[in-house]
Amino acid sequence: MAPHFEIPKTQQAAIVESTDAPLKIVRDHPVRQPSELKPGECLVRLECSGVCHTDLHARNGDWPQAAKLPLIGGHEGVGHVVAVGAHTQGSPVKVGDRVGIKWLAYSCLDCEQCRKGIEQSCPNQQLSGFTTDGTFSQYVVSWVSHVTPIPASLDSFEAASVLCAGITVYRALKYSQTHIGDWVALPGAGGGLGHLAIQYAVAMGLRVVAIDTGAEKRELCLKLGAERWVDFRESQDLVADIVAATDGQGPHAAVVTAATGAAYAQAVDYLRPGGALMVVGLPAHAALSADIFFTVTKSISIFGSYVGNRQDAREALEIAARGKVKCYYVRKPLSALAETYEGLAKGTVVGRVVLDMQSE
Amino acid sequence: MAPHFEIPKTQQAAIVESTDAPLKIVRDHPVRQPSELKPGECLVRLECSGVCHTDLHARNGDWPQAAKLPLIGGHEGVGHVVAVGAHTQGSPVKVGDRVGIKWLAYSCLDCEQCRKGIEQSCPNQQLSGFTTDGTFSQYVVSWVSHVTPIPASLDSFEAASVLCAGITVYRALKYSQTHIGDWVALPGAGGGLGHLAIQYAVAMGLRVVAIDTGAEKRELCLKLGAERWVDFRESQDLVADIVAATDGQGPHAAVVTAATGAAYAQAVDYLRPGGALMVVGLPAHAALSADIFFTVTKSISIFGSYVGNRQDAREALEIAARGKVKCYYVRKPLSALAETYEGLAKGTVVGRVVLDMQSE
Amino acid sequence: MAPHFEIPKTQQAAIVESTDAPLKIVRDHPVRQPSELKPGECLVRLECSGVCHTDLHARNGDWPQAAKLPLIGGHEGVGHVVAVGAHTQGSPVKVGDRVGIKWLAYSCLDCEQCRKGIEQSCPNQQLSGFTTDGTFSQYVVSWVSHVTPIPASLDSFEAASVLCAGITVYRALKYSQTHIGDWVALPGAGGGLGHLAIQYAVAMGLRVVAIDTGAEKRELCLKLGAERWVDFRESQDLVADIVAATDGQGPHAAVVTAATGAAYAQAVDYLRPGGALMVVGLPAHAALSADIFFTVTKSISIFGSYVGNRQDAREALEIAARGKVKCYYVRKPLSALAETYEGLAKGTVVGRVVLDMQSE
Amino acid sequence: MAPHFEIPKTQQAAIVESTDAPLKIVRDHPVRQPSELKPGECLVRLECSGVCHTDLHARNGDWPQAAKLPLIGGHEGVGHVVAVGAHTQGSPVKVGDRVGIKWLAYSCLDCEQCRKGIEQSCPNQQLSGFTTDGTFSQYVVSWVSHVTPIPASLDSFEAASVLCAGITVYRALKYSQTHIGDWVALPGAGGGLGHLAIQYAVAMGLRVVAIDTGAEKRELCLKLGAERWVDFRESQDLVADIVAATDGQGPHAAVVTAATGAAYAQAVDYLRPGGALMVVGLPAHAALSADIFFTVTKSISIFGSYVGNRQDAREALEIAARGKVKCYYVRKPLSALAETYEGLAKGTVVGRVVLDMQSE
Repeated sequence: MAPHFEIPKTQQAAIVESTDAPLKIVRDHPVRQPSELKPGECLVRLECSGVCHTDLHARNGDWPQAAKLPLIGGHEGVGHVVAVGAHTQGSPVKVGDRVGIKWLAYSCLDCEQCRKGIEQSCPNQQLSGFTTDGTFSQYVVSWVSHVTPIPASLDSFEAASVLCAGITVYRALKYSQTHIGDWVALPGAGGGLGHLAIQYAVAMGLRVVAIDTGAEKRELCLKLGAERWVDFRESQDLVADIVAATDGQGPHAAVVTAATGAAYAQAVDYLRPGGALMVVGLPAHAALSADIFFTVTKSISIFGSYVGNRQDAREALEIAARGKVKCYYVRKPLSALAETYEGLAKGTVVGRVVLDMQSE
Repeated sequence: MAPHFEIPKTQQAAIVESTDAPLKIVRDHPVRQPSELKPGECLVRLECSGVCHTDLHARNGDWPQAAKLPLIGGHEGVGHVVAVGAHTQGSPVKVGDRVGIKWLAYSCLDCEQCRKGIEQSCPNQQLSGFTTDGTFSQYVVSWVSHVTPIPASLDSFEAASVLCAGITVYRALKYSQTHIGDWVALPGAGGGLGHLAIQYAVAMGLRVVAIDTGAEKRELCLKLGAERWVDFRESQDLVADIVAATDGQGPHAAVVTAATGAAYAQAVDYLRPGGALMVVGLPAHAALSADIFFTVTKSISIFGSYVGNRQDAREALEIAARGKVKCYYVRKPLSALAETYEGLAKGTVVGRVVLDMQSE
Repeated sequence: MAPHFEIPKTQQAAIVESTDAPLKIVRDHPVRQPSELKPGECLVRLECSGVCHTDLHARNGDWPQAAKLPLIGGHEGVGHVVAVGAHTQGSPVKVGDRVGIKWLAYSCLDCEQCRKGIEQSCPNQQLSGFTTDGTFSQYVVSWVSHVTPIPASLDSFEAASVLCAGITVYRALKYSQTHIGDWVALPGAGGGLGHLAIQYAVAMGLRVVAIDTGAEKRELCLKLGAERWVDFRESQDLVADIVAATDGQGPHAAVVTAATGAAYAQAVDYLRPGGALMVVGLPAHAALSADIFFTVTKSISIFGSYVGNRQDAREALEIAARGKVKCYYVRKPLSALAETYEGLAKGTVVGRVVLDMQSE
Repeated sequence: MAPHFEIPKTQQAAIVESTDAPLKIVRDHPVRQPSELKPGECLVRLECSGVCHTDLHARNGDWPQAAKLPLIGGHEGVGHVVAVGAHTQGSPVKVGDRVGIKWLAYSCLDCEQCRKGIEQSCPNQQLSGFTTDGTFSQYVVSWVSHVTPIPASLDSFEAASVLCAGITVYRALKYSQTHIGDWVALPGAGGGLGHLAIQYAVAMGLRVVAIDTGAEKRELCLKLGAERWVDFRESQDLVADIVAATDGQGPHAAVVTAATGAAYAQAVDYLRPGGALMVVGLPAHAALSADIFFTVTKSISIFGSYVGNRQDAREALEIAARGKVKCYYVRKPLSALAETYEGLAKGTVVGRVVLDMQSE
């Protein structure tokens, strides 16, 4: 299984040396060579990589868990396998395959969590761009058991953001205990995760009440299939407006990606009795604060939903490949990463940014 | 369907006239006569009634939702049907049947929540001792569709506390997504709900880590089948101790009845990834405060579990009737209700108090 | 709650006096008057009624269970409530409401099956047009707890077939353990149940492989959204063709309405490992014959799915009301019932027949 | 990771050369040496191996799928890892660990079935004693990802039959959609699988109606905790007797291991509406023949349940290790295998036979 590709010795990469230091773009970062791969590892030549809010947390080190340092971030990468480690047994991918690198880069597939299918909560996991170097480079080493084949009909730049934002909202919707005809509330519906969530929800037959602000986002949400729109800045009583928008009974589920506890407390208030609150955000420091009395008397279920497992990833990509979900993104070179981080911090990034890893 | 019982015109009852006024025990409270019953209603002559912390909230008016006033509290009553309203169609109970009156006295059986089996969250519900007069009296009017037949082999005083405390912990365990061999943490294991929870858990094949304090409660918990004991007053690091007690991985579920937010936050910390937090307490004012980061990355599910539906009630009673669960209670006259409330407020009540409604 | 409608003493009705005798259309069948209704009953003036294969079984008496005699058949009726029985408590419908009469006319809402939400398997049930007179008449007596409100935007003739054919396939799909992107096989996809199943499946995001025969049905199936077509008459190897049509792995589920055991055995063969076989047909005499070896080694689940409960009914109608599902039907007078039965027996009925109950 | 054990060049083994030829016990069968192991493989020195009916099918070649030839059968082996293949990455086991070899010797952990947790239906699987040589030998090569650690407190001979018979009935009960207090019917309750099923069921809080014949089996079943006994030879109406034994409503589930279709048809008849039929037998040629009419109207679910996955295996062993389940077995030398097969074919084997692989 010798590599069919010319593999350079060095590459361009974006490196975080410490959480205080500015991001460094270097051109001479070493590429791990095929002979250096362990069994089970593969080397992927990246075409592109999306940028996610999580990368900013990894870069800033503001989570309860610390990233490796120095760090190459990134976990929405798409590229081709150019080498597979010697002695790898039963690899599901081979040299030449186009694959995605997602947040969950590796899990042991043997612990209780893996055996039960929540491999994203495996204690032995590796996380791309967090505990292992990620996709803000031209080559990345990952694991054959966890890279995700990209369906042929899906463009690599389209696929990039599906690998994290897409999978995350897809899984949250999939496990929200809703079915066709049920109402789902999407706070932040016009944002990076939200606009994908609308499309996945509509494709499942769910009815969407989009919650966000501004005419541009309103238009986008309605165009993507949301049936109701609530502008949280214009609303005098957000809970009442969301309940009114959904047959007066409240949505059956809410997928909340917000960075503050308030959005969770509100969801318990506007959800229909028996409703499900999907918690998917990973803010730096925030507590999910829900009123106990109403969580109980309304029989509310609250699910921590963490990215997705390998099966969720396949499904989310397949749905996108069939044209049901399209990501709104801007293409930029790797050198634009620092300014993209600034934009994410200020909240000025519209849609997603996908970096072209092979342009200079 | 004429009543076979002599029905008096007046009865002894404990009445809350306002949340400020002292509880009044009267002997001349009118008994609604059979001819005054509406279709679907029944009159029950009570043998006994358990006293629950919820009664204290109803009495004090410290919940977000207010009780009717004046109020006869109580929702763990056992007695015999002595009359069924004229024109009642298809009643599942008849005069002479021994039945239980539980918190959920009525639901419409027609709304979305009822159709989906969470009748306890029905918007058209009646709650015994809260929105309708309850069981701290010698006769109570209830609904034929919701009174619960008591299995023949179960003593009425034994059955009383199963009707609320028992059903509540039984349902929480039943929906905790655990199965045989899984670990469940029971904070407050030595208390009114907790000591029943241990027994239901053990009967299901679950392994119990009991969390409470003091030698007496320790002995009780271990005697009832708990395999591990953590004294929260002696523990230096409660989370670490609970994790250590459960194979070093944390329990698969926790049934939390606590009145403060802290117990919920702790549970998210000690639960095993993929674990379930069952929220069953109904404190006056408290927020469930869980760390969002770990709720998500540990794939934790949090379920508001509210008493139980009619099926849960039957099952909880049946298990008790087969001797798998025994309530530790003290028998008192109705006149002891005020002092029982004081004891509940101070936390000095050991086990449950069950009032004998026919003694003077 | 006095009736606002002029209620005649007699009506037109189609009566089966014995399974041997020809169907009789009479004009002088008595109408049960409002004063004769029991609590919980209501009188409905019918606009229309669909005709279902099940009506033919009831008429012919060829099921293991016998229908009442003499019998008025019919269980897909739509009309208006014109009276509610005196002393009815808490009726969810009132005079003037437009409602549907479905196969399950009554369940006790109290037994174990009802408490668990499978009221269609209630041992105390009444079945419209089978154990109680049905909708092939101008007025029918039914139960307020089980008549189904018809959404305002849905035409009565459109609603009729949803009430049995629609609910049946909707529930089967809903409980098929599939989700968006999964393949579902629909044998008989061009028929009365099948063409509705395609539309419900597509609305849920499922991918349909339609199995039927002939150019007309092929065109209909593809127009309704089926992605694959297998003509069972042209196919040399039906199992292989269905597997090939679904990524070479077989469908995730099959909804089988067939009257013969063979269709079930085939489904076990073509289903993907882990797949679900939904059994919805009610043939006169037929055994579901599945190979045990492959049922086990392929981890196949086989679900008996019987019409639907009240919640399923609401959902199926709501989806139709939003225009996601349209029934192909022909409108005929009640006098055409006998010839419709002949057509059903011969298999020459295209789509569904809906009888106009108020035309002469 | 050099082996710490003396590994011989040859070993004793029982070999099937063809389905017609007599079983051969040889002493000079080569042992695959550590240097010959591929990455991911391990060599296990066996202490013992249970004998299962499935081994007889493999030996006789009477299944729809053919075994490898020549074949060493056996799939209930317990022993110690004595070598792990060079270049194996992230092995969950190491030399010296005591492990079990079960029917599912290998699955890819990557296909849709594996990703969804039904690895036992993986199309890339290896089956011990069927597609790969099994445990009727002193040394066996297996896969580190699928050998099952044996809990320290469980004796190897005790563990052997848990690895197939135990796991199989445990999974069937676990997925039978029952919970505490529900009735489960166990036809063949006194047999190899059945007597384990009683114990697992009782440990879960299920109530068992044991169906078998003879005073000895009756005594065993009742001793193990069955609450009801129905002797199928003495019964005039098996279905009626089973229904009568279970509160007159029929069991909630049945675990059927029978080799004939009749047992499945009966189960559909005696199950309570909403009940679950667990299909676990793997007869040579038999069809599951269930009446369609009653499967549908009774809302019966029929689940093909195939051995168990890695998680089921851990759980079944852990329960046995805690003393909740004990296997009744007879210890024999490998040379007794041929006569054991004869006994199984004639039905004269009482309990299970476990072969001592290290005795001569």
